Amino acid sequence: MSRLDQQMAFLTEADRLKTVLRATTLCDGSRLENSAEHSWHIALYALVLAEHSDEQLDTGKIVKMLLLHDIVEIDAGDAPVFGDHDAEALAIREKAAADRLFGLLPDNQAQEFRAVWEEFEANATPEAQFAKSLDRMQPPMQNLASGGGSWIDYDVTYDRFAAQIGPKINHGAPKIWAWLQPKVAAFFAAKD
Amino acid sequence: MSRLDQQMAFLTEADRLKTVLRATTLCDGSRLENSAEHSWHIALYALVLAEHSDEQLDTGKIVKMLLLHDIVEIDAGDAPVFGDHDAEALAIREKAAADRLFGLLPDNQAQEFRAVWEEFEANATPEAQFAKSLDRMQPPMQNLASGGGSWIDYDVTYDRFAAQIGPKINHGAPKIWAWLQPKVAAFFAAKD
Ligand SMILES: [Ca+2]
Repeated sequence: MSRLDQQMAFLTEADRLKTVLRATTLCDGSRLENSAEHSWHIALYALVLAEHSDEQLDTGKIVKMLLLHDIVEIDAGDAPVFGDHDAEALAIREKAAADRLFGLLPDNQAQEFRAVWEEFEANATPEAQFAKSLDRMQPPMQNLASGGGSWIDYDVTYDRFAAQIGPKINHGAPKIWAWLQPKVAAFFAAKD
Repeated sequence: MSRLDQQMAFLTEADRLKTVLRATTLCDGSRLENSAEHSWHIALYALVLAEHSDEQLDTGKIVKMLLLHDIVEIDAGDAPVFGDHDAEALAIREKAAADRLFGLLPDNQAQEFRAVWEEFEANATPEAQFAKSLDRMQPPMQNLASGGGSWIDYDVTYDRFAAQIGPKINHGAPKIWAWLQPKVAAFFAAKD
């Protein structure tokens, strides 16, 4: 197989991410969001919001991470953040998925993409931390727009949201969390 | 409104791109593709295929173009490439859409994004030409995978495809066209 044969096989397989459904709906509540359109949306978040980081970030790296971050879900599935799942079993499934999916690419590109995905997962660099924060803050944005979304479906309280999700958004994007937190608090206060 | 207020309003409005349906199906033929997931897919094409350009391209710029290129469809709709449409009326609708949608952003960012979109539309820089070629070659890839897709729906012949689409792919990505052309030719030859 030529490099192009391998690359096109990867790009065609990647199409399946459009069929992986998430727990979050579109902003209009009309249907569940899939992981491909979610990936586009948070890459757009990165282009728009990178200026609100405290550090000088490599926006291109963040966008690349976000375009690649969910591809493992083609084999491993999406694990809803408020659902129950075995984190260890999921990590094993995702590593196997990364082996298979990135392994469709020519070796040097497989290694490059794998490294970007692992940097995102490790959450240790400023770029990964900002990217992870965007990935955590887009679902509450969708829920605010749709009138509750996955918060209703999973019977989530403000306290649970603030304890489980808040620190993860705040970690990489404190200015964005400071903007979002009062809006989420007001939503839950009005609901109760 | 603060910058973040404006930026979040734009990002929430951008969500509507997930409801704009294209003429192309997913690779499995199960449903029509929407313009948000299409935008993710071709940004991924750019990451994977940029090495096949003859010029030293700014891949980050190409990815940015592809993430933004269809946002005007939220107001202007998608114009299927094999369908009939009034190009002049469409261009007017798209300019109005760009005014409204990018205009949701803070001024400096509205101008920046608008300039990126106009660079794509003008198709004059190497980055725009490569990006346009990817945008033209992803639908035939989907059609080859699904067994015909929009070629069947729009009753397209190989000659029409080669005359109407081939030069547009070849213009910015001749190596990719050289790879794709025999595959499309073989598909139509087997079909007739
Ligand atoms: Ca995600």
